[in-house]
Amino acid sequence: MKHIRVIGLDADDTLWHNETIFERVHERYRALLSEYHDAATVDRTLLATEMRNLELYGYGVKGFTLSAIETAIELTRGKISAEEIRTLIELGQEMLNHPVELLDGVAETIAQLASSHVLLVITKGDLRDQQRKLSKSGLAPHFKGVEIVSEKDAATYAAVLHRNGVEPAEFLMVGNSLKSDILPVLELGGAALHVPYALTWMLERTDQIPAAPGRFFQLPTLGELPALLQTAIDPGSR
Amino acid sequence: MKHIRVIGLDADDTLWHNETIFERVHERYRALLSEYHDAATVDRTLLATEMRNLELYGYGVKGFTLSAIETAIELTRGKISAEEIRTLIELGQEMLNHPVELLDGVAETIAQLASSHVLLVITKGDLRDQQRKLSKSGLAPHFKGVEIVSEKDAATYAAVLHRNGVEPAEFLMVGNSLKSDILPVLELGGAALHVPYALTWMLERTDQIPAAPGRFFQLPTLGELPALLQTAIDPGSR
Repeated sequence: MKHIRVIGLDADDTLWHNETIFERVHERYRALLSEYHDAATVDRTLLATEMRNLELYGYGVKGFTLSAIETAIELTRGKISAEEIRTLIELGQEMLNHPVELLDGVAETIAQLASSHVLLVITKGDLRDQQRKLSKSGLAPHFKGVEIVSEKDAATYAAVLHRNGVEPAEFLMVGNSLKSDILPVLELGGAALHVPYALTWMLERTDQIPAAPGRFFQLPTLGELPALLQTAIDPGSR
Repeated sequence: MKHIRVIGLDADDTLWHNETIFERVHERYRALLSEYHDAATVDRTLLATEMRNLELYGYGVKGFTLSAIETAIELTRGKISAEEIRTLIELGQEMLNHPVELLDGVAETIAQLASSHVLLVITKGDLRDQQRKLSKSGLAPHFKGVEIVSEKDAATYAAVLHRNGVEPAEFLMVGNSLKSDILPVLELGGAALHVPYALTWMLERTDQIPAAPGRFFQLPTLGELPALLQTAIDPGSR
């Protein structure tokens, strides 16, 4: 992997915990609506609303909060009280104000990687929220650039690489989502490292298995990446 | 102005109408709450909520919608119905779905400027919403880059110029907000053209009068910019 010059890192659930925070909010959301519907119905209807609104809202906490309010009105046939809706707004604000909790070993690993590679954050979500989290994380000085994008597809990665003067052959993307962090980068000819997180949001799930010998890797933690970069794997020689 | 190589353009109310759309929504918002409060109280309370939430939400329609719901609950002491809150969510979605209406002469002027200068869009707001508006506008092919930022201060402009390899001395920013488009760019040593819009959002107003001879200009429409660029004004010779 000595040909890798630039490493892109996803943020939510790769650098810091995110889906666990959403999951705790989901639990409180189910409890709020439990007198009207069972948990499975609440989850299914909220997901349907989020999918319907995704094109309009994009990713992030603000769109989630609006979809949660819309779903609550729908599931209670308008019986939900204004106070309960205020609780949903406060839940969203709590998420935005939530402390940033780095994954184990991330602080040391990012500092180490920054001494040998150019690092970029490449993430979806609300612009200000992601900037705030990066700032709170203490990791910002290690990154040469921050790319907050509205969708992570091959076209977006191609634009990001072009803008930063990076060739796919010298690029490694690291993230927890096969769909958003791995498959589109492999499609472009780059390398990709999948570091799974305990939870994966439904809309990030995929059944596709990456097939890219010498370019696709999986590791249980980010902490093992420096050793991988020292290996002799070179896709050009295969 | 022949030393200008790169032109940055604000988007909302510089390339296309925006504040007029917000104003029409404000009117419907006041009507919705008119049985509880007079228009001035509604406006004042909504603005206070928006200011309080600005750090958390940033700019854009999604944050506006959340602040409008929060304010409506507050102003009605929780008496607003779920159906009325659904109406507010729909108002927000209408704003996001609104057609892009270019200001007079913008299409021709941008096409003309793109043949002689490097053009960048530099705008605040929701990431996906601004990208969608640019795409709908038909202007995207004329721009070399699109910078959607969470705040327009001198530090942000400095980062944008650095990232794009642009010196302040060869840069002109064009926009309708003295506070966001003009003052921070003048502070960096760049040039700035103020093209006022009929309406200015309260949070974009400033009492500061720019003082930068040879670097600060005002024109009634963007259409007069090509002629200004042909003039002999050169701040270095003054």
